[in-house]
Amino acid sequence: MRVLLVNPNSTVSMTAKAETAARRVARPDTEIIPATAARNPPSIQGFYDVAMSLPGLLGEIEERQPGVDAVVIACFDDTGLDAARAACDVPVVGIGEAAFHAASFLCSRFSVVTTLGRSVPGIEANLQRYGLASRCARVRASEIPVLDLERGDPAVVEQVADQIAAAMLEDGAEAIVLGCAGMTELAASLARRFGIPVIDGVASAVTFAEALVAAGYKTSKIGGYAHPIR
Amino acid sequence: MRVLLVNPNSTVSMTAKAETAARRVARPDTEIIPATAARNPPSIQGFYDVAMSLPGLLGEIEERQPGVDAVVIACFDDTGLDAARAACDVPVVGIGEAAFHAASFLCSRFSVVTTLGRSVPGIEANLQRYGLASRCARVRASEIPVLDLERGDPAVVEQVADQIAAAMLEDGAEAIVLGCAGMTELAASLARRFGIPVIDGVASAVTFAEALVAAGYKTSKIGGYAHPIR
Amino acid sequence: MRVLLVNPNSTVSMTAKAETAARRVARPDTEIIPATAARNPPSIQGFYDVAMSLPGLLGEIEERQPGVDAVVIACFDDTGLDAARAACDVPVVGIGEAAFHAASFLCSRFSVVTTLGRSVPGIEANLQRYGLASRCARVRASEIPVLDLERGDPAVVEQVADQIAAAMLEDGAEAIVLGCAGMTELAASLARRFGIPVIDGVASAVTFAEALVAAGYKTSKIGGYAHPIR
Amino acid sequence: MRVLLVNPNSTVSMTAKAETAARRVARPDTEIIPATAARNPPSIQGFYDVAMSLPGLLGEIEERQPGVDAVVIACFDDTGLDAARAACDVPVVGIGEAAFHAASFLCSRFSVVTTLGRSVPGIEANLQRYGLASRCARVRASEIPVLDLERGDPAVVEQVADQIAAAMLEDGAEAIVLGCAGMTELAASLARRFGIPVIDGVASAVTFAEALVAAGYKTSKIGGYAHPIR
Amino acid sequence: MRVLLVNPNSTVSMTAKAETAARRVARPDTEIIPATAARNPPSIQGFYDVAMSLPGLLGEIEERQPGVDAVVIACFDDTGLDAARAACDVPVVGIGEAAFHAASFLCSRFSVVTTLGRSVPGIEANLQRYGLASRCARVRASEIPVLDLERGDPAVVEQVADQIAAAMLEDGAEAIVLGCAGMTELAASLARRFGIPVIDGVASAVTFAEALVAAGYKTSKIGGYAHPIR
Amino acid sequence: MRVLLVNPNSTVSMTAKAETAARRVARPDTEIIPATAARNPPSIQGFYDVAMSLPGLLGEIEERQPGVDAVVIACFDDTGLDAARAACDVPVVGIGEAAFHAASFLCSRFSVVTTLGRSVPGIEANLQRYGLASRCARVRASEIPVLDLERGDPAVVEQVADQIAAAMLEDGAEAIVLGCAGMTELAASLARRFGIPVIDGVASAVTFAEALVAAGYKTSKIGGYAHPIR
Repeated sequence: MRVLLVNPNSTVSMTAKAETAARRVARPDTEIIPATAARNPPSIQGFYDVAMSLPGLLGEIEERQPGVDAVVIACFDDTGLDAARAACDVPVVGIGEAAFHAASFLCSRFSVVTTLGRSVPGIEANLQRYGLASRCARVRASEIPVLDLERGDPAVVEQVADQIAAAMLEDGAEAIVLGCAGMTELAASLARRFGIPVIDGVASAVTFAEALVAAGYKTSKIGGYAHPIR
Repeated sequence: MRVLLVNPNSTVSMTAKAETAARRVARPDTEIIPATAARNPPSIQGFYDVAMSLPGLLGEIEERQPGVDAVVIACFDDTGLDAARAACDVPVVGIGEAAFHAASFLCSRFSVVTTLGRSVPGIEANLQRYGLASRCARVRASEIPVLDLERGDPAVVEQVADQIAAAMLEDGAEAIVLGCAGMTELAASLARRFGIPVIDGVASAVTFAEALVAAGYKTSKIGGYAHPIR
Repeated sequence: MRVLLVNPNSTVSMTAKAETAARRVARPDTEIIPATAARNPPSIQGFYDVAMSLPGLLGEIEERQPGVDAVVIACFDDTGLDAARAACDVPVVGIGEAAFHAASFLCSRFSVVTTLGRSVPGIEANLQRYGLASRCARVRASEIPVLDLERGDPAVVEQVADQIAAAMLEDGAEAIVLGCAGMTELAASLARRFGIPVIDGVASAVTFAEALVAAGYKTSKIGGYAHPIR
Repeated sequence: MRVLLVNPNSTVSMTAKAETAARRVARPDTEIIPATAARNPPSIQGFYDVAMSLPGLLGEIEERQPGVDAVVIACFDDTGLDAARAACDVPVVGIGEAAFHAASFLCSRFSVVTTLGRSVPGIEANLQRYGLASRCARVRASEIPVLDLERGDPAVVEQVADQIAAAMLEDGAEAIVLGCAGMTELAASLARRFGIPVIDGVASAVTFAEALVAAGYKTSKIGGYAHPIR
Repeated sequence: MRVLLVNPNSTVSMTAKAETAARRVARPDTEIIPATAARNPPSIQGFYDVAMSLPGLLGEIEERQPGVDAVVIACFDDTGLDAARAACDVPVVGIGEAAFHAASFLCSRFSVVTTLGRSVPGIEANLQRYGLASRCARVRASEIPVLDLERGDPAVVEQVADQIAAAMLEDGAEAIVLGCAGMTELAASLARRFGIPVIDGVASAVTFAEALVAAGYKTSKIGGYAHPIR
Repeated sequence: MRVLLVNPNSTVSMTAKAETAARRVARPDTEIIPATAARNPPSIQGFYDVAMSLPGLLGEIEERQPGVDAVVIACFDDTGLDAARAACDVPVVGIGEAAFHAASFLCSRFSVVTTLGRSVPGIEANLQRYGLASRCARVRASEIPVLDLERGDPAVVEQVADQIAAAMLEDGAEAIVLGCAGMTELAASLARRFGIPVIDGVASAVTFAEALVAAGYKTSKIGGYAHPIR
């Protein structure tokens, strides 16, 4: 099957990283089609960036949608998820959403470790919207800017690890959701280090998108996700 | 004081109607500055239209913001509200949000009567986000397209009135929120007809914006509404 | 317009302080009509004081109601708010309620700093009743008795400031609601000191009451706020 | 043990009816001490009546409290419950509250059948406050005034029965809570007629009060129920 | 990969039907290992049956667990899900849970159509536990006993279809979750007939289990799902 | 009346301790009938133990049910409560549930102090299910294994006391619920030491069961607690 993996920001190296994470977990017969919203901001950190990215993201999705079996939006705040569903017949999965659902299958209670504090209210709003706020003990900010993750500074790993340790101790978290597409490559080693599930949104979203396609599901076209009126 | 009243869709007659509603209730010393997001779709009906309108709306707000004391977003789904708050120091008020808060001061439980069913999930999501879902008995669709409201068809009033009657009987609604900027001129006569408060978002948002300015409040600039990183 | 500002306790200096705060923000054409429930306790701290104050407060409101356009109840626990709405056709606004709504327009998440711990459960119950508990991170007690606020002890400001600092650090609060009518004069300087919105209930309630009157709204007279049966 | 059974309204025949219901279920060694708040309104129907009854009710409780082991407030809206707890060391139980808790032990989901529609918002607010709103499918008004119940009109039973039938059919209610002290004598026959638990607040409150006393519990005197400051 | 598909009841034809549904959607390289809890009741309808089935189900899981990559519990009330997670390192997915999560990716709001009314409270409790109650408009009973589904009576399809039609009309449901493993073969034709997603738990659970395995996740072994103490 | 007191684990000394606690508070005319599920695990700590205990527990209840007026399940996680209600006409009360309800009559907000962290998610799920999660500030683990309580180690009391002190300071708890049948004998002395209500589940459940019987209530036999289909 063919899965469109759209990065709503314009940083091509983040798209590449997400693509690598996607291919690592995808079925042998799944084609990952990476896309970058080239005119969008280089990172999406907070409500304003999300808003400014939407037409660029949706344009990318609509242009590449024919022939695609599912769409994954590779930004942890699930940029444009509702609008993309309205635009698509095929399933659309956000990496934030997918990570929350994945964690819900593996533990009673998880915490999220994200980048900047400014992103926390948007993530909390998403959790409430999806209904999964009661499963999340706390959304924690590591105060690492998104693009610093890209630069591979080793101090960055320790800042994330500090928040994981605190989440286990203070929040009673039984699993951790990494709250940024740029943290995808940290998940496996942090899971080994802490001995608990560390959930990556890209891996979760790609495999869940495959699952929805395999099960034969499509996006509902009545109500909120009806096709836009043109 | 100066209140920017932005219509996120491009239908100038809706801006004019909102401006009239705003001037009717504004303080004598308030200057209402109408604005229309000229390149946006003619109406905003559902998630996709909201998403496509955001940069146009935010551009309008940012261009006109200097010298303005408050911003009112004149679309009932509160298009771009979070992003506009991040972009502004002054208070930003959405007409949906304002109507829900106004109703909360006047009754225990209200219902919303909006246009198309496709807009209901977005309105419900807003109510939940604002925390006021427990005050709303039901969001009802009259199945009147936004632009039909503009044409002034008298049948339209009866479709709204039917939903109000049903809300009083079935939902136990003690007040009604009209769920579209285009319904603003119906509020007063429907309130008289049914003998209960019928809340109009434009009137609510303009007077609440004036209230926040008079009380000396500004948008918080820490956390989710911090200034965008440029 | 004419706004009745009722202090449900019998401490005249608190009425005077609230009146000053009200006049500072009221429209030029608004007449603030102060009233003190003379036979009530000198301060209202907890459920018992609230209960004992109700007939005195309602008597004051009913006597002065003719010719008034709105009523503001100047006690942070919104003493008698539901009963006053049943007794009045005009809008009735509590200062606690108004402060929570004001904060909701300005930030994602606020904390409350009130006087004694014994008042916390009542405030939390109000937040839940109004639907705004999800917007409030925490209700904090400064353990300052109400009447100590009246005496103007400078140490009192620091006790409040300590709680604000803790709310920003520990609760992720983006704005602060001051949880007592007696704190009204501290709001502006604390807002400057901490660089975030510090919300005063009196200013919020007076300007929101003006807003509701200007928009032409009245209290619903069906359901819970129907006129009492005599 | 000695249980004070206070009727917050001044209708002596309602006190007598509650006393009969209480004695029917009380332990042989329990002394039921009936009390009527003689200066209060003849019935309590909505927020205003509740408020006006509080000092009269609390005066009655405080005067008779010495030597009493528990207090039952015999009005379904739990008039003055929080304030009475602040005034007492012994357990205080409201009949509304007790009925909701009793129903929670017997079924997954119950509905309430009360008197007038104006009482519904107060009962719903109590359910939410107690945390038991999720257990209640719906609060239904039979539109029977409280004092009509006193007159023993047989039509009244059928109006209540109609609501019970509707609750079973439409709400999926597995048990019914009768929402007025004046309905106490209807419970047993309606339970037989419909074959489901029909819960009476007076019986529930008296036996729960006995239970709390037997278990050795007292009202917490820290936080919200601390003794009033005199 | 190897997925254990356990039917907690002892009806072998239901296991076979679930196996067929599983194979239809599973990856080519997935081995479905069917298992039937042979000593359990022939169907699980309500809390008592669930309880009596647990040791038999857990015994089946523990015996077959070595060498298995994931476990699917093929009963819509997610019999023993928490206990099975405590017993397993690999992911465990219930078909009820999986269906709710699948629907959450495809629509704003879904309704469930299940068998008997007695099963509704357990399903509602699960939805609340998982956090997804806010996504579900209503759980509807078709009043078809589980084993009647097995017999393939054509009237059965129409009873389910009637509830789907009602859910679309009355609940505003945008998708339907079929609330019984025995309905699995009805999903595709009902989806075509009504033009909305009709979610089958078995297909959802098998593909989500594959997804979790492919993404490399395991059940958390701290907190509630720690290994039992032996 | 006759109250069956079932210990779902096989540790006879715990049954004896619960029996002593029950007799201490029961009416003079109540016969406490102790029962131990002899083939069950020696303690129930977490989801797996709960599941494995259910048929043994239900067998015990069904065998002894004839002639019994109420059933108390003496395990704090309310093992098998829903299933036991389906199996019984008489009221069934769990000690966890009873303790939460008792605390709700005595304070605004309580905390729970239980044994191991692994039991916390199950207790939290129960609180949410019962609707009383909003009344509970926090469920705290003392990390004392159940059977260590049995051995009477004095250090154990201090570990519980430490958590009570923390709950009062950090959670604002106004009362404490002891979260294990094995803590029953600690309640009275801890209540004296800390000066707040310390709630024991056994005492609460026995007296509430007596209350439900005295009031004439039975378990609802429609919906979720309908008799099992045989």
